[in-house]
Amino acid sequence: TPITTLKLILALFIFLIGVFGGGFYKTSIKKIANNSKSINLATRTILANMGYYVILLAAFFIALNVLGIDLSSIALVAGALSVGIGFGLQNIVSNLVSGIILMFERSIKIGDFVELSGTVRGHVTDIRMRSTTLNTNGNIDVIVPNRNFIEGNVINWTMHDKIKRFDIPFGVAYGTKPEHVIAVIKEAVVNSGYSDIIEAHDRFTNVIMTGMGSSSVDFLLQVWIHGEEILAPSKTMSRFLIIIYNTLNAHGIEIPFPQQDVHIKSSDEK
Amino acid sequence: TPITTLKLILALFIFLIGVFGGGFYKTSIKKIANNSKSINLATRTILANMGYYVILLAAFFIALNVLGIDLSSIALVAGALSVGIGFGLQNIVSNLVSGIILMFERSIKIGDFVELSGTVRGHVTDIRMRSTTLNTNGNIDVIVPNRNFIEGNVINWTMHDKIKRFDIPFGVAYGTKPEHVIAVIKEAVVNSGYSDIIEAHDRFTNVIMTGMGSSSVDFLLQVWIHGEEILAPSKTMSRFLIIIYNTLNAHGIEIPFPQQDVHIKSSDEK
Amino acid sequence: TPITTLKLILALFIFLIGVFGGGFYKTSIKKIANNSKSINLATRTILANMGYYVILLAAFFIALNVLGIDLSSIALVAGALSVGIGFGLQNIVSNLVSGIILMFERSIKIGDFVELSGTVRGHVTDIRMRSTTLNTNGNIDVIVPNRNFIEGNVINWTMHDKIKRFDIPFGVAYGTKPEHVIAVIKEAVVNSGYSDIIEAHDRFTNVIMTGMGSSSVDFLLQVWIHGEEILAPSKTMSRFLIIIYNTLNAHGIEIPFPQQDVHIKSSDEK
Amino acid sequence: TPITTLKLILALFIFLIGVFGGGFYKTSIKKIANNSKSINLATRTILANMGYYVILLAAFFIALNVLGIDLSSIALVAGALSVGIGFGLQNIVSNLVSGIILMFERSIKIGDFVELSGTVRGHVTDIRMRSTTLNTNGNIDVIVPNRNFIEGNVINWTMHDKIKRFDIPFGVAYGTKPEHVIAVIKEAVVNSGYSDIIEAHDRFTNVIMTGMGSSSVDFLLQVWIHGEEILAPSKTMSRFLIIIYNTLNAHGIEIPFPQQDVHIKSSDEK
Amino acid sequence: TPITTLKLILALFIFLIGVFGGGFYKTSIKKIANNSKSINLATRTILANMGYYVILLAAFFIALNVLGIDLSSIALVAGALSVGIGFGLQNIVSNLVSGIILMFERSIKIGDFVELSGTVRGHVTDIRMRSTTLNTNGNIDVIVPNRNFIEGNVINWTMHDKIKRFDIPFGVAYGTKPEHVIAVIKEAVVNSGYSDIIEAHDRFTNVIMTGMGSSSVDFLLQVWIHGEEILAPSKTMSRFLIIIYNTLNAHGIEIPFPQQDVHIKSSDEK
Amino acid sequence: TPITTLKLILALFIFLIGVFGGGFYKTSIKKIANNSKSINLATRTILANMGYYVILLAAFFIALNVLGIDLSSIALVAGALSVGIGFGLQNIVSNLVSGIILMFERSIKIGDFVELSGTVRGHVTDIRMRSTTLNTNGNIDVIVPNRNFIEGNVINWTMHDKIKRFDIPFGVAYGTKPEHVIAVIKEAVVNSGYSDIIEAHDRFTNVIMTGMGSSSVDFLLQVWIHGEEILAPSKTMSRFLIIIYNTLNAHGIEIPFPQQDVHIKSSDEK
Amino acid sequence: TPITTLKLILALFIFLIGVFGGGFYKTSIKKIANNSKSINLATRTILANMGYYVILLAAFFIALNVLGIDLSSIALVAGALSVGIGFGLQNIVSNLVSGIILMFERSIKIGDFVELSGTVRGHVTDIRMRSTTLNTNGNIDVIVPNRNFIEGNVINWTMHDKIKRFDIPFGVAYGTKPEHVIAVIKEAVVNSGYSDIIEAHDRFTNVIMTGMGSSSVDFLLQVWIHGEEILAPSKTMSRFLIIIYNTLNAHGIEIPFPQQDVHIKSSDEK
Repeated sequence: TPITTLKLILALFIFLIGVFGGGFYKTSIKKIANNSKSINLATRTILANMGYYVILLAAFFIALNVLGIDLSSIALVAGALSVGIGFGLQNIVSNLVSGIILMFERSIKIGDFVELSGTVRGHVTDIRMRSTTLNTNGNIDVIVPNRNFIEGNVINWTMHDKIKRFDIPFGVAYGTKPEHVIAVIKEAVVNSGYSDIIEAHDRFTNVIMTGMGSSSVDFLLQVWIHGEEILAPSKTMSRFLIIIYNTLNAHGIEIPFPQQDVHIKSSDEK
Repeated sequence: TPITTLKLILALFIFLIGVFGGGFYKTSIKKIANNSKSINLATRTILANMGYYVILLAAFFIALNVLGIDLSSIALVAGALSVGIGFGLQNIVSNLVSGIILMFERSIKIGDFVELSGTVRGHVTDIRMRSTTLNTNGNIDVIVPNRNFIEGNVINWTMHDKIKRFDIPFGVAYGTKPEHVIAVIKEAVVNSGYSDIIEAHDRFTNVIMTGMGSSSVDFLLQVWIHGEEILAPSKTMSRFLIIIYNTLNAHGIEIPFPQQDVHIKSSDEK
Repeated sequence: TPITTLKLILALFIFLIGVFGGGFYKTSIKKIANNSKSINLATRTILANMGYYVILLAAFFIALNVLGIDLSSIALVAGALSVGIGFGLQNIVSNLVSGIILMFERSIKIGDFVELSGTVRGHVTDIRMRSTTLNTNGNIDVIVPNRNFIEGNVINWTMHDKIKRFDIPFGVAYGTKPEHVIAVIKEAVVNSGYSDIIEAHDRFTNVIMTGMGSSSVDFLLQVWIHGEEILAPSKTMSRFLIIIYNTLNAHGIEIPFPQQDVHIKSSDEK
Repeated sequence: TPITTLKLILALFIFLIGVFGGGFYKTSIKKIANNSKSINLATRTILANMGYYVILLAAFFIALNVLGIDLSSIALVAGALSVGIGFGLQNIVSNLVSGIILMFERSIKIGDFVELSGTVRGHVTDIRMRSTTLNTNGNIDVIVPNRNFIEGNVINWTMHDKIKRFDIPFGVAYGTKPEHVIAVIKEAVVNSGYSDIIEAHDRFTNVIMTGMGSSSVDFLLQVWIHGEEILAPSKTMSRFLIIIYNTLNAHGIEIPFPQQDVHIKSSDEK
Repeated sequence: TPITTLKLILALFIFLIGVFGGGFYKTSIKKIANNSKSINLATRTILANMGYYVILLAAFFIALNVLGIDLSSIALVAGALSVGIGFGLQNIVSNLVSGIILMFERSIKIGDFVELSGTVRGHVTDIRMRSTTLNTNGNIDVIVPNRNFIEGNVINWTMHDKIKRFDIPFGVAYGTKPEHVIAVIKEAVVNSGYSDIIEAHDRFTNVIMTGMGSSSVDFLLQVWIHGEEILAPSKTMSRFLIIIYNTLNAHGIEIPFPQQDVHIKSSDEK
Repeated sequence: TPITTLKLILALFIFLIGVFGGGFYKTSIKKIANNSKSINLATRTILANMGYYVILLAAFFIALNVLGIDLSSIALVAGALSVGIGFGLQNIVSNLVSGIILMFERSIKIGDFVELSGTVRGHVTDIRMRSTTLNTNGNIDVIVPNRNFIEGNVINWTMHDKIKRFDIPFGVAYGTKPEHVIAVIKEAVVNSGYSDIIEAHDRFTNVIMTGMGSSSVDFLLQVWIHGEEILAPSKTMSRFLIIIYNTLNAHGIEIPFPQQDVHIKSSDEK
Repeated sequence: TPITTLKLILALFIFLIGVFGGGFYKTSIKKIANNSKSINLATRTILANMGYYVILLAAFFIALNVLGIDLSSIALVAGALSVGIGFGLQNIVSNLVSGIILMFERSIKIGDFVELSGTVRGHVTDIRMRSTTLNTNGNIDVIVPNRNFIEGNVINWTMHDKIKRFDIPFGVAYGTKPEHVIAVIKEAVVNSGYSDIIEAHDRFTNVIMTGMGSSSVDFLLQVWIHGEEILAPSKTMSRFLIIIYNTLNAHGIEIPFPQQDVHIKSSDEK
């Protein structure tokens, strides 16, 4: 079955009809949808686009048929191609399977306060097949693909107990005795009157020295908190920052500005 | 069927005819298209390029045929190759499938104000099979592959309610009492007269201390806003920045410049 | 079997019934579950979602059947597609296999104190098929996919012996003799009275010079510690930082601020 | 068919003939091409290299044949290998398919001014099967693989309308009233006499405060421009920068240098 | 074989029995293991988990069987899926194969001192099938997947000879003659009395100028060391840093602080 | 065919003979090659290594055969394995295909001056099947895999015309009138006497303001150059930098140093 | 063949025998090897590990057999799994193929001085099937996987000629005439007496201005060097740095320190 010029023109003609027919269909759908209020925008878009591509594909295969090209001969190639096409689905499948795992594993439940390492932190408000919605403390709804919960490190703040250690860094001027700083801050925190501080034999308020910075001697207040406040970390941090700040001021311990030793040399010396 | 020199020359000859014929076709199409105004540039390019490659491929297979190489024997290899070729399609398929998911899931609809984490923020103006168009507040149309909406974290600002918390950082000089700063800023915001601020039992204006910086004591104003203004974040931020700035000035609270303690040492000491 | 308009409408009708039936099912499940307290939220979500998709899929295939499309003809494509779909599972499989390896290899056991290079450090509290839970010193439960333990470098702090070297950097002012600094710090550490310092012929307290910084001569204290304290690195570091700080102060060795040589030039000179 | 030493030597001999024959062919082609001016350098390289590898491969297979190794037995392995080889083609295929999509989708047309997010910006001068040429405002032709247009976010500056918002940042000294700055800059822009500024009810010149910087109070001029000038962004920015600069100078509003508060302490105090 | 409601309920019932049976099994194993001291924790976890999943899977397939779904019909899909699942194993296989290569290649042997470019450095204490243990100079055991040794650049400090060049950077004040600096440092190193410095015709102590920095003229001491000390690089560096520091001090060559030329202008001038 | 101990020993024996035989072969080849000067080092290495592995493999399969393991039964596995092995070739294939594309597409020809975005810039001196050699202006030969030219953005400086715009940034002191700066620099460039500057209606020398920096008002000189000099960008930049520098000096326009406003506060005030 | 409890116990028993037998074998091998000095550590590890896993696998399959599970039915799955497993080999294969390419292509030969872009630079001392050893100028042996040479940009410093351009940057104080700087440096280099500087019509010593820095006017000395010294770049750079430094000093041209204009304002002004 040789391909004659006539056939070629005919095939091209059929394909063009498909193109114009598809375009016409798309425009019609849009017109009808605009008039009818009951069909919303998204539904309209799906109907218009899908129909368009179906018509195009049909025209293409009819044109091939007219040219006498046997469709079955491209079956093997089609099968092999679909292997690759299947790869295009791997991201979606990965999210679906992750969703099922999340539902069965129950490491994350609706209502939990979770943190996706270094990305986002919030309450789980919905677990769907493909994605999960986190509602941050600032009421921002973040749609997270389920896959991210399976691939990354996840911190579940509400898993076992509502006890967490808060680490609050601060610095004092060189010349201050470390033992003195540690004593006054510890005392201030213990005497702060906050009822959610834990003082047990293995979990107690502690102050450690973390380094000798370029301008300040650096310390870290480690304080154990229990209760609902651990789910509002910045608010809790604020409480202890104010205590440290007021305590240092009250004891006359200086919080240093950046320091610099300057050696002034006359310009002639150079 | 041994490959004789004659056959080789013949095959080469046929292939060269294909190369020149293809080139001739391409040039002709361009000439015709230049004369005719009804064919636009893109259509011309498609016709010219596709035709060119079809002619080249045809010439190549005819030349192989002349050499007596059985085309069916390369069928298996072709099938296997097409597995790999199919992989080339995976990115495109991924976008198409993502598009269908977006349309069915309706987590993103035309008219929504969405943010693709850390990349782009704007109103959705079009959802197509392969890509989605976002119109930023500055009227820039960004064409985003659908895949990005499925793989990344997405924030839909218009999903549930039009209530969001705005966090505005500011700093005051060391020496200021934190309780005083918190009180005056809270009062100023509450008395600002803006009708879109929310003051409920669980969502209310708050000021927290966030750290002891090198030159300033750092605070964060947390204010809950409802209504259309949440879709113009920088404009809303501007309103509260002006309030904070004016309030601090009015109460004589210093917004500090970078600080430095300088120890002047004579150059002889070194 | 040509596709008539009637069939098309029928197929569409069946598919729509599936869509509405699925939606009705989903809503019903949610209602029933809300009334019954014995079914928790996660179970409800699984039942609702899975049932919904099963109904949708069934409606889709019945509709295809009505249209006369032979389902067996899409079997090959389905098989090939599932290759790609299988890829979607690779991340999950990788975690499961990693879990089995972890259990057999016993390089990580429950109770160990491990560090995933540069990411997270804590006690292993649970090893499951897909993930492992680390409990950090701050009582934060981090869920780590098992794969991360197989792909990354892992440090097991409790594998062989409880002996580790701690390296504590510090700097002194230019002009100080290095030999003097090394001697006094070594002496102070050896005489500190801490019983967990090791002084053997191959593992002993040492101080080395590490560089000539822009403002300070930099040293490193290397001290060998044995016992439980190696599992609380920041606390242990704190102990020796205080010793170094106090020793330098006691011997009048200056810890320098950032230095700067300033050449003042009159503005006319330029 | 045992492999005798004789056969081995013969096979080696045949392979070596292939190696030398290939080398001889390559050298000959180069000599002939050097003499004949009608064959250009690229054609010569193709002929020389392809011929060389064809000869090598042929010699290799003949040598295998001499050794009695049945070529058909390596067919399965060859088929499987070609799956992997096909993968090598995926990048090229991806570009070709992207090219076809670009041509049909018409989201990018020849003559458009497009921006590939964060990489390159220019007029499209050519869309080919594999790559697209962008001509930047500085007349640099950048050859961009089509794939990049499909995978990345693309901004088409000439898609819908020629209206864009330009955001020009500037800062003033602390102490200036924000309301005053906003008023004078707005007035200056509106009265600048430029005919391409838009002042409509939803798109109008605006000045917002964006932050309290370490040395300056930061503002942003938002001005809507229509017409051809949006395609020369740096030139347009320049116009408004000059207006802001001159206006601030005319009203005596200071553009601050970096600020620093210095606390001088005698060297004895430390 | 139509699926009747009865069958469905039966299948669900069987599956639920499996779920509860599995849970019961898991709990029993844990109880037994807790009582018996001879079964350690890891063994218990394996037994409990594996048994649980085996029971679940069995229940699932029996339930499918009751529904009349032919298991053989999902064989093709299973086969194809396992291709993807096999991919999940690729990381593990890669490590095993890398392990075998390491053992045969002997580029890394137990006892060697190796460095994985930019990641970790230590003595090889164990080479297993999947991973290798490095013991750093600080006695930290790092478990490195074998794959990392095959994919990255590896430095084997103990491969050929125990001779390495150490490069120690230092800077002197502007105004110093480079020839003088080079001479005194070279002399000091040669006369240092260290017996492990090499002075041969092609490997000798050298000092080169590496740049004109913003505040200092930068040099590099290159000194060749042989013997065991090359395996303790920071200790060896320390030795030569002290020599350079003492030599520069002894010859009155200044090691400069950061320099700055300051032009003081009256505030009225601006 | 049970595996007896005898067979096992025999198989092991055969394998060991292979190992030693291979080692002997390798050593012999090296000795022979060392004596004969006509065989160069690379050829020797290939012969030695390939022969070694061929002997090892042969011994392995003979040993398997002695044990009675049917080689055909591992054919399927071998075939499947080769799929993966084929993947190992994908990088090499990708380069070869890219090479063929480069040769046919002629977007890069020998003699062109090309830039691989952000990596390397130079004249193309050789296009081979796998890689291309670029000769930079500093006569450094960089071997670039062909794949990089297909995957990355490529700038061909010699494609269409030898006309490019050079952008030279510079800054002046605050207080200078922008209109004055623009005028004098424009005039100086136009009157520079360089014959390769283009002054046409759409391509002409221009100076634009690009920002208000922290210490300087920033401008950009845009000058169009034609001819060979565009291939030596740094040399061309140098010419215009000298013009700008001399012009600013001649007109008394200050090029500012970094600026700083210093507020001196007594140490008692803090 | 139903699975009875008896069979299950038997299968478990067989598997346990395998586990203990394997462990016993491993321990025995280690003991024997420790006694016999002729077996080195690596050989011992291979024997011990491989034997262990072989015994384990055998026990596992025998146990399955006892349970009546047909091994042939898992053949298809095994075949498919091995596809994935084959992927695990892709990195190793990639290195082997790269090694063969390197040997045939001869773009890198033993003795060459090569640079792997931005990673490592040294003499090639060995090219093996999987990896290549580079010996840096500091006698550090870096084992580089062959793949890196095929995938990255490679610079072969010894390919064509031993001529390279060295670019040495330097800066002078503002106020110096560029023409003067260029003249004196050029003269000093030409008159330096070094015999390996090239002064030809197209390759000659040049000095260009590269920018107006914040504190200095920046220049670049471009000098062409031939001979062995190009393989010791830092040593060669050192020579010319000393010339530039001495020349600038001799002509009284200032090398500037970082500059700063300071405007002192009284603290009351703020």
